[in-house]
Amino acid sequence: MNTIQAGPVHPSPRAVSPLRPASAARIEGGFWAERRRVNARISLAEGPGRLEQAGNLANFRAAAAPRTDGADTPSGTGFSGDFQFQDSDVYKWLEAACWQLADTPDETLATEVEAIVELIAAAQREDGYLQTYYQLGGGIPWTEPGWGHELYCAGHLIQAAVAHHRATGSDRLLAVARRLADHIDSVFGPGKQVDTVCGHPEVETALVELHRTTDEKRYLDLARYFLERRGHGTLSSGADRGHDRDPGPEYWQDHTPVRAADEVTGHAVRQLYLLAGAADLAAETGDTELRTALERLWRDMVTTKTYLTGAVGSRHDWEAFGDAHELPADRAYAETCAAIASVHFSWRMALLTGEARYSDLVERTLFNGFLAGAGLDGRTWLYVNPLHRRARSHERPGDQTAHRTPWFRCACCPPNVMRLLAGLPHYLATADDSGLQLHQYATGVYGGDGLTVRVTTEYPWEGTVTVTVDEAPTALPRTLSLRLPAWCADHTLTVNGTTVEDGADSGWLRITRAFTPGDTVRLDLAMPARLTVPSSRVDAVRGCAAVERGPLVYCLEQTDQPGRLDPDTIAVPPDTPLTVRSRPELLGGVRTVSVAGNRLRADDTSGDWPYLPYTSATSGEPHESVELTAVPYYAWANREPGAMRVWLPLAARG
Amino acid sequence: MNTIQAGPVHPSPRAVSPLRPASAARIEGGFWAERRRVNARISLAEGPGRLEQAGNLANFRAAAAPRTDGADTPSGTGFSGDFQFQDSDVYKWLEAACWQLADTPDETLATEVEAIVELIAAAQREDGYLQTYYQLGGGIPWTEPGWGHELYCAGHLIQAAVAHHRATGSDRLLAVARRLADHIDSVFGPGKQVDTVCGHPEVETALVELHRTTDEKRYLDLARYFLERRGHGTLSSGADRGHDRDPGPEYWQDHTPVRAADEVTGHAVRQLYLLAGAADLAAETGDTELRTALERLWRDMVTTKTYLTGAVGSRHDWEAFGDAHELPADRAYAETCAAIASVHFSWRMALLTGEARYSDLVERTLFNGFLAGAGLDGRTWLYVNPLHRRARSHERPGDQTAHRTPWFRCACCPPNVMRLLAGLPHYLATADDSGLQLHQYATGVYGGDGLTVRVTTEYPWEGTVTVTVDEAPTALPRTLSLRLPAWCADHTLTVNGTTVEDGADSGWLRITRAFTPGDTVRLDLAMPARLTVPSSRVDAVRGCAAVERGPLVYCLEQTDQPGRLDPDTIAVPPDTPLTVRSRPELLGGVRTVSVAGNRLRADDTSGDWPYLPYTSATSGEPHESVELTAVPYYAWANREPGAMRVWLPLAARG
Repeated sequence: MNTIQAGPVHPSPRAVSPLRPASAARIEGGFWAERRRVNARISLAEGPGRLEQAGNLANFRAAAAPRTDGADTPSGTGFSGDFQFQDSDVYKWLEAACWQLADTPDETLATEVEAIVELIAAAQREDGYLQTYYQLGGGIPWTEPGWGHELYCAGHLIQAAVAHHRATGSDRLLAVARRLADHIDSVFGPGKQVDTVCGHPEVETALVELHRTTDEKRYLDLARYFLERRGHGTLSSGADRGHDRDPGPEYWQDHTPVRAADEVTGHAVRQLYLLAGAADLAAETGDTELRTALERLWRDMVTTKTYLTGAVGSRHDWEAFGDAHELPADRAYAETCAAIASVHFSWRMALLTGEARYSDLVERTLFNGFLAGAGLDGRTWLYVNPLHRRARSHERPGDQTAHRTPWFRCACCPPNVMRLLAGLPHYLATADDSGLQLHQYATGVYGGDGLTVRVTTEYPWEGTVTVTVDEAPTALPRTLSLRLPAWCADHTLTVNGTTVEDGADSGWLRITRAFTPGDTVRLDLAMPARLTVPSSRVDAVRGCAAVERGPLVYCLEQTDQPGRLDPDTIAVPPDTPLTVRSRPELLGGVRTVSVAGNRLRADDTSGDWPYLPYTSATSGEPHESVELTAVPYYAWANREPGAMRVWLPLAARG
Repeated sequence: MNTIQAGPVHPSPRAVSPLRPASAARIEGGFWAERRRVNARISLAEGPGRLEQAGNLANFRAAAAPRTDGADTPSGTGFSGDFQFQDSDVYKWLEAACWQLADTPDETLATEVEAIVELIAAAQREDGYLQTYYQLGGGIPWTEPGWGHELYCAGHLIQAAVAHHRATGSDRLLAVARRLADHIDSVFGPGKQVDTVCGHPEVETALVELHRTTDEKRYLDLARYFLERRGHGTLSSGADRGHDRDPGPEYWQDHTPVRAADEVTGHAVRQLYLLAGAADLAAETGDTELRTALERLWRDMVTTKTYLTGAVGSRHDWEAFGDAHELPADRAYAETCAAIASVHFSWRMALLTGEARYSDLVERTLFNGFLAGAGLDGRTWLYVNPLHRRARSHERPGDQTAHRTPWFRCACCPPNVMRLLAGLPHYLATADDSGLQLHQYATGVYGGDGLTVRVTTEYPWEGTVTVTVDEAPTALPRTLSLRLPAWCADHTLTVNGTTVEDGADSGWLRITRAFTPGDTVRLDLAMPARLTVPSSRVDAVRGCAAVERGPLVYCLEQTDQPGRLDPDTIAVPPDTPLTVRSRPELLGGVRTVSVAGNRLRADDTSGDWPYLPYTSATSGEPHESVELTAVPYYAWANREPGAMRVWLPLAARG
């Protein structure tokens, strides 16, 4: 078992975080093992080919070509691709590959990683600058802070370098990252060449991690500079070329400093990468005002701007958070990368506060809003993840929700999915001075502070989690903490077969004792299928209910309904029976939920004008009954295209 | 009274249209007279100043400057403003001013009109080309069909020229328009320099009207060419500079020809200007396949893609129609120009078919989705017209729904509002061989086919419409037709005090007799306040009801509620009493509707997670009652900013 700290977030010894990622974490079976197997064998393995095809690697080769004319711009060919930030796709793949190598040695993958590391090193300019778009004639470096994405790419390079170092022990890419960070440090700051921030946050969290890895304080100071400089209106799209629409300062969170903000706003990925970096800073600096702001912003996000699937970002327009409670199911933007960013932010808040609610959101997001972005085949992806798709949408060639696609013109999501899946063990367990905390449940081995346990579970299909102690310090009491999921209404907890008193402590079930190898803790989470309704403020899905089971959100896909019935023409009686069925042959093996529903009469669904006089007569006439089949939302859009909905209209009570 | 045909649409004698605009139509009092007075005295009067300030007129002066170097590009200064299509703002103002002059002589306005006409004439190139953006160095004419807007601007010039000709009898601007149209005819067509269409339809309807005015068949043929050429994928944004996002072919209706399309799609204004032009063509050519397609597309729009306010365009992203039944209240784009385009299309369909339903939609759109775009002060405007604004939206500087603004960077809407208000009499009445049809009710005089009537009404505040015959052909029977609004559930019709049998004929109440001057027809439309609910397919407002009265949609504005109660924290019992109140001092004089509602308890409106387990217990607990005040939607956003909603959540029945 790998015991080096192979994960993206490792608070330094000086950090105030009560929790640290478990020193050992390995998934050995079950739901996530299968998804990670596909990630390794297909997604990661095919990555270099995709990056070659899309021109990303060619850009590095071109930037690395010898300068024949002494000019700053190398003599290679021009930049391939449409976006300034394409280097970041390479960095994210590289980070993913490193976490995978940390978990499971793979000679082919290791060889590819080293080749790309050398290519990146060769492309770096002598002064440390590195962004192939500008090196290949795209413009003058550091003059387009709004859209240039130079610090964004730098951040991803740094994260890849940290991963490479943690996974392999090598300093090769870390040296490249340090040279770039040193260059940035020489360029940015009060009184220096540039005194502003990057349009896309990312470098903040990367610099903190670089500080954690190298113990170089300048990187922490630089991260703090970028955090504090933001929010003072120094960014303006007008300053950059080729952008004829102005998104306004909220888009890139330049309207107000993080510590003063009271709601999450603007581009969802930008907002959450920024908050992840701020959480890292708060951990390293003990800045309590900043921590309070982060708790406030997280709460704002969760209580007013998060979909049932954990997804965020309500607007296609600028890929943005909407107003409070603006959560349209059909036009949910819910970018896969935003779900990933939400996991990054929440995980850092879990470490910073020790509170279970952050991992509740991580669980919901992982199993639903995030996982839906990755096709079951490991090679097709969704960029946006709506909770409702109407019957004709998939016929539209320009519709981003239409089909899973193999790679994107703007390919941010696929390698981002890869790095989260490859690094997933990192997000499951923590340790503190008193013991071990299990945040998520997956079959495997987790250890820290002398306590090592083996988890066996059929989660998320079954609610039983068996935890067997492998190693424990002799006669020293330790606390094993198990997160009681917020979705769970009923549970039992036993230790060596005896039910224990288990009042949950803010979402944690805690067992303190001198553990002995072989001790077995068993948590049984009742997992009936259930109906969930929105609060009265969530306008877009008023009068509807969603089917959930355990951490999974379900949906109706047209293909599963009798006669391919359009799920937009049904309603569900509020007290409808829900029946769980095991379908090992379906979608890689799922449990479906059967729902006794009503098929709407034609006159409910058509007419000359879709608004009718209210009449107080209840439409208690009998509808045709129909047995509807719901599948886990994460598995949608893996078969023939068609309509889908998560939120099912509730039938009026007769 | 003006009796020349001063309106934008006049089918030729060869047209198959059963109805022609009334030869006389004059609004003399009441609701629309007041709005038109503000339009003339403020909006139109301030127009030239706005156009000067925004640089539009400077562009014409620069284009008209003497060419000192013999080059194609004049030696003037560069183009002022951000958009290629800014010339069209001038043309639309000019068209509006001409309709106003046709209605009411005004020496100042006439002088301004003639000065701008001369400026335009001077800016035209010798070969007839005219678009100041390209003339002032913006690029090479006719090489950027997707985004260049050259034919779009040409269309607006032609419409202004037709208006100028019809209002003043002058050929001065018409000659400019003909030279431009002839130039276009020489450039566009199979085997000619350019064989494609403009990214923004508009020239089609303009060319048909130019044909109608000049009797030149080439213009009709050119319009037909542009209509038929569209839908074959010849447009691509990739061909143009400076646009890094590709909207896809549906955006500009280039995915399928109009006659084959089965749903309205893409940019709403583009779609509806195109369909207006197609309706003109169908009228002039008798093309029944095209007419059938237009009826199909209109029905698709009305039954699945139109807001209660008559507004269209559900998506901010690309200002577009959404999928069927995708009608979010909060993120309604509902551009003011799209409402205007809907009126253009529906009016042409009314003329083409003689059917009342088209004017039903015109009425709803005029009183709600359109009129909301124009501030009561005549100098502030809304670009987008949502049916719901949450409390914090107005604090966002970048929010287009935030405030009425004096003029836009992209100022398409203000002069478009002006031309519709100035030309409004044109849309109220028609004549055919057998008599006169009143489509809309406004105090004034309307005449055609020998029958002239005087209408007196307090519409839309009161449902009584009194029609007195002023002139009638002696002893010749004529049919007076009055549209029975679709919203009206109960009415009585009397002739000279006697109730007449009046089964409505597809929305028309028809009275056939030999009318005598002094004959009085009185239509009483019952106009109680009423609750309207959406069909089960309109997901975004399920479980809500809207208050309507007559043709008016109502809304709750925060400022009118007790204690500035946020209208997002209320619910309305389904059988709530509605009380109409006259408020002459409010918003220029309105009737409000009082609604007995419930204030939600705090625990309905806040929490840690906005999704709750469904429990079958009805929340029958008493809520605090609150008297809510609804105002006409058209008048919203004219006072302090705050939350607004049209659709009110229905309280669960206790």
